[in-house]
Amino acid sequence: MKATAIRTLALDAVAAANSGHSGMPIGMADVATVLFEKHLKFDASAPDWADRDRFILSAGHGSMLLYALLHLTGYESMPLSEIKNFRQLGAATAGHPEFGHAAGIETTTGPLGQGIATAVGFAMAEEILRARWGAKIMDHHTWVIAGDGCLMEGISQEALTLAGRQELSRLIVLWDDNGITIDGKVDLSDRTDQMARFAASGWDVFSCDGHDPEDIDRALSAAKASDKPAMVACKTHIALGHAAQDTSKGHGALTDDSQNQAAREAWGWTHGPFEIPAEIKSQWEAIGARGAAEKAAWDARFAKLSNAKQVEFSRAFARQLPRKLSATIKALKKQTSETAPKVATRKASEMALEVINPIMPETVGGSADLTGSNNTKTGDLGVFMPESRDGRYVYYGIREHGMAAAMNGMSLHGGIRPYGGTFLCFTDYARGAMRLSALMKQPVVYVMTHDSIGLGEDGPTHQPVEHLAMLRATPNTLVIRPADAVETAEAWEIALEQTETPTVLALSRQGLPTLRTEHKTKNLTAQGGYVLAEAEGKRQAILMATGSEVAIAMAARDLLQAEGIGTRVVSMPCWEIFEEQPDAYRRKVLPAGPVRVAVEAAIRFGWDRWLYGERGKREKGGFVGMHDFGGSAPAGDLYKHFEITPEAVAAKVKEML
Amino acid sequence: MKATAIRTLALDAVAAANSGHSGMPIGMADVATVLFEKHLKFDASAPDWADRDRFILSAGHGSMLLYALLHLTGYESMPLSEIKNFRQLGAATAGHPEFGHAAGIETTTGPLGQGIATAVGFAMAEEILRARWGAKIMDHHTWVIAGDGCLMEGISQEALTLAGRQELSRLIVLWDDNGITIDGKVDLSDRTDQMARFAASGWDVFSCDGHDPEDIDRALSAAKASDKPAMVACKTHIALGHAAQDTSKGHGALTDDSQNQAAREAWGWTHGPFEIPAEIKSQWEAIGARGAAEKAAWDARFAKLSNAKQVEFSRAFARQLPRKLSATIKALKKQTSETAPKVATRKASEMALEVINPIMPETVGGSADLTGSNNTKTGDLGVFMPESRDGRYVYYGIREHGMAAAMNGMSLHGGIRPYGGTFLCFTDYARGAMRLSALMKQPVVYVMTHDSIGLGEDGPTHQPVEHLAMLRATPNTLVIRPADAVETAEAWEIALEQTETPTVLALSRQGLPTLRTEHKTKNLTAQGGYVLAEAEGKRQAILMATGSEVAIAMAARDLLQAEGIGTRVVSMPCWEIFEEQPDAYRRKVLPAGPVRVAVEAAIRFGWDRWLYGERGKREKGGFVGMHDFGGSAPAGDLYKHFEITPEAVAAKVKEML
Repeated sequence: MKATAIRTLALDAVAAANSGHSGMPIGMADVATVLFEKHLKFDASAPDWADRDRFILSAGHGSMLLYALLHLTGYESMPLSEIKNFRQLGAATAGHPEFGHAAGIETTTGPLGQGIATAVGFAMAEEILRARWGAKIMDHHTWVIAGDGCLMEGISQEALTLAGRQELSRLIVLWDDNGITIDGKVDLSDRTDQMARFAASGWDVFSCDGHDPEDIDRALSAAKASDKPAMVACKTHIALGHAAQDTSKGHGALTDDSQNQAAREAWGWTHGPFEIPAEIKSQWEAIGARGAAEKAAWDARFAKLSNAKQVEFSRAFARQLPRKLSATIKALKKQTSETAPKVATRKASEMALEVINPIMPETVGGSADLTGSNNTKTGDLGVFMPESRDGRYVYYGIREHGMAAAMNGMSLHGGIRPYGGTFLCFTDYARGAMRLSALMKQPVVYVMTHDSIGLGEDGPTHQPVEHLAMLRATPNTLVIRPADAVETAEAWEIALEQTETPTVLALSRQGLPTLRTEHKTKNLTAQGGYVLAEAEGKRQAILMATGSEVAIAMAARDLLQAEGIGTRVVSMPCWEIFEEQPDAYRRKVLPAGPVRVAVEAAIRFGWDRWLYGERGKREKGGFVGMHDFGGSAPAGDLYKHFEITPEAVAAKVKEML
Repeated sequence: MKATAIRTLALDAVAAANSGHSGMPIGMADVATVLFEKHLKFDASAPDWADRDRFILSAGHGSMLLYALLHLTGYESMPLSEIKNFRQLGAATAGHPEFGHAAGIETTTGPLGQGIATAVGFAMAEEILRARWGAKIMDHHTWVIAGDGCLMEGISQEALTLAGRQELSRLIVLWDDNGITIDGKVDLSDRTDQMARFAASGWDVFSCDGHDPEDIDRALSAAKASDKPAMVACKTHIALGHAAQDTSKGHGALTDDSQNQAAREAWGWTHGPFEIPAEIKSQWEAIGARGAAEKAAWDARFAKLSNAKQVEFSRAFARQLPRKLSATIKALKKQTSETAPKVATRKASEMALEVINPIMPETVGGSADLTGSNNTKTGDLGVFMPESRDGRYVYYGIREHGMAAAMNGMSLHGGIRPYGGTFLCFTDYARGAMRLSALMKQPVVYVMTHDSIGLGEDGPTHQPVEHLAMLRATPNTLVIRPADAVETAEAWEIALEQTETPTVLALSRQGLPTLRTEHKTKNLTAQGGYVLAEAEGKRQAILMATGSEVAIAMAARDLLQAEGIGTRVVSMPCWEIFEEQPDAYRRKVLPAGPVRVAVEAAIRFGWDRWLYGERGKREKGGFVGMHDFGGSAPAGDLYKHFEITPEAVAAKVKEML
């Protein structure tokens, strides 16, 4: 009756909420019961145990399966009251599992395919940390329940081919093979031979009767023994035993009282709604306590590590920065200000990583097949491969979405600070996972190079114009577009200081002069915006710019000053941070009065906040930037063609004076 | 030497531009030559021939392959001067193939995987139109050249499983199996057995030596004969014969003069840069003229159609609306105004489709497995399946990106007006292809329902907050968020009137009252924004709102008017259109003076344009909406929790009066 307890809780909670998905938890209850009873390494009383197995419900709409398991096995943060409060305001039991709402929810799922792709990152993290800390400290599996929806999403292909190439043998996917989607039978839209597909991707594949505990146990044992990632096709009936069994209706909320009662009877369940007999509850709690001894043994092993090692392990999991980082960044800034190189900010990012990576062993870098363009690989990292698990650089392949999700997984796993690169324009491909970084509060660092028409000849398909706006519009995301090598070093420091916010670094392809030639120990970028150059004489104009356009603004200032027009240049590398500064500071940077012109090789969308708001005046605000998609030509030609030049900026100022 | 002509043009153009990708055109020249010489149905002098085979270069970075083929076979819009001008401002020969730049460029490619996924739409269009018009009028193939990058992108999985399920036997993918990516050997990041993967997806698979014309011809013939979609693995050497052969260096721009000269010699090519001997050019031109007779025969068959059929065929390809549409929409609006139903705008969208689809046989609808939620299927459509090719509804499966790309393909093919649905939040998954709709100027209609926290319990993973801003920030994209059933009908009319712009319809899950209860024949939504309710007495406040929040603004108006505060409500369903209205009209709608409050259950980003700009005043502009991600709870609770209520709107107005 253990599995039936899951089924009834799911049925009751969905019926009470009059909303949700009953069929999946009912269908997968048997598989989940065997997994938790016989295979999953966990201790419900120690949900943060670093070496626990991770269980990821990729088919997140079946959230009641997870909540029921957490409640039954005795997770403190999942009392019955939360189950009863399913899908209500403020409940831990959100419609889809939300990371941070309760212990045991390892990741946010719901957008299909994200769970399985995030799990790849969990499994990579385990390999990397096992290589570093040894199997006594890190030695666990990552289990995933995925449905047909997860497997139809493109991201799943990126995930499973990455996992296959990397031979992530600790990753096991349990496919809820119920043959049903929302629109009807899977066959309506898909006839993929999933077993053959996984095998073609380098996985071992198994199958079982998803309602036969012995058969499930056999398949799970075999999957664990495999030296490749393993997929177990669990043949199940959605909404088993309910009138809606094996139908798309069964996928959704089953709320018909008499049908639900009939299902209960079919299951042989005689107890009332939300009622779990003590005997069954205590069987489940025994399962929840199954891992306690193993946890204690792990604690003992951990305690035998040197104090320095324990501190280092805990530091990385707590996302604390090494003490040396601040001084290291300052030294880099000083040297950069003094030597004033003309380099692309993508190159400056590499220069920052060259000093960061050696002192932060928790960083894991990578790129979606643009290593040489994103400048993400530093000399010391080594390559993460089956034969070199201590490598800290990942060749993600042409898989932007899979990369972003894997980074989420590594970050969620703990002990690792992932960063990865692609072109800013291909944010489009990674959006689904990038949004989850923000929603789950994971400080993933996205190294997005080739951040404007400045990339030149590759043309409009590769030139972001709306992407800065898209990313700035996304809650809990820092978008930093540094103007030179000094700001880039500062941007990296800010990104690494985050513990609950992802950062997008928007970096240029083209070389940029060092503008911050006077060394300041203070991280000026950490104010979001600041006065880079003050007006000489009466302040008549303020130029605001980011990234590669700051140099253009500086040149425009020269033109204007030459005509006696006092012009301030404000570098605004990070709007989100500037927005959070005290009003008094913002007022100092953007005082009322002068004409304001914003310069950015992207569309205007969003700039009105700074042009018209913040004491600005409608008649005195102008924009120099893009108004449509870009073009294919050398970068210099494009800047001229789209009139993003010092001359155009100066003219815009004078037009409004 | 025909293939060598391609190689040298690619080598010369890239070297002259000092930018581009030499290796792929060099490696695939033999395959492309056999394809164009022996298989592709085309007539270079009639590039718009509706029944031509489509050739899609999914590996778009190898653009010089396509440009060389178009030039050599005699496409008028691809003279040698364009080849010489490769990657320069204003040239037809952009870095990646851009649809519209020259005849013969069937679609924009470059973002990897898009071409192969778009091709699925081309092939679907061919099936649908063949079913409707008969094989005498529509009977062609879609050929794709795809590289490893295309196949690693997740979108390719969505594309090929959709094609497999739909048994699109006229679709043939030629895989450039050269084993090289930018980061190095494919093996660095991928070991997928592509043949097995395609087979698992329902494809027939073939292989050939990509440098042996006879073997290529054999494989292509076999692929054409298959009754499934077919993939031909063409084993090639990237940058064949060049010092960079079989290396990742060969992927990029080969610009070393002496190496290039050595390659020329290895190829036995003795002519100068950009020089094609007349004999070889005339051989190619003969290939370009090969289809002329077939084209003439087609013309004759087309001429035999009844005049009405010819007109109808041409109307659909010209994207002209049926005459009846305007009257039909007006009648629906009248009826809706009179009956004033309280329905969700997704339901209102279905009501509009119920009258549109019967009179527009060129529409093809679908959904990414949310048919019942997106309300995209009308009774008359029938389902597109291998056994019912005349069906006009597509069960796309859980493949948002694949759906969007397929819609691009159908639209580009011509003769079809595609629309498809998912939740607005999953715009994230479809972004890559949606951006291409805009860039390629394809009037695809995206039916994006569940457009805010109003979807309720599914929670923040499903609740868009930044997506309206993202879409509004995208050039050449209409974002229409109708307030009620009347505006929804108007929105559909606008979307269908577009010939060069995609439209996103943002539609509510929740029921909304009909606000437009007074029938107007004029399409008010086509002004972008308009006065829905005038202030009574002195106009002290203007409330601006979109979609489901317009009803909240109307209720707030009631509260304010009750206190004697004259309040106008402006419905702003489409910013992009409002922006294009004459200043005099915008001034009438948004005059200077009154307090302005914007109400939208999304983040504020972008609204400052209307609050502070347009004669607005900083101190007199306020926003009621979202400031972060949403939550999981019944919709009503969320609106209260996030304080998006009439009371909050009224309070915000009074605060600023």
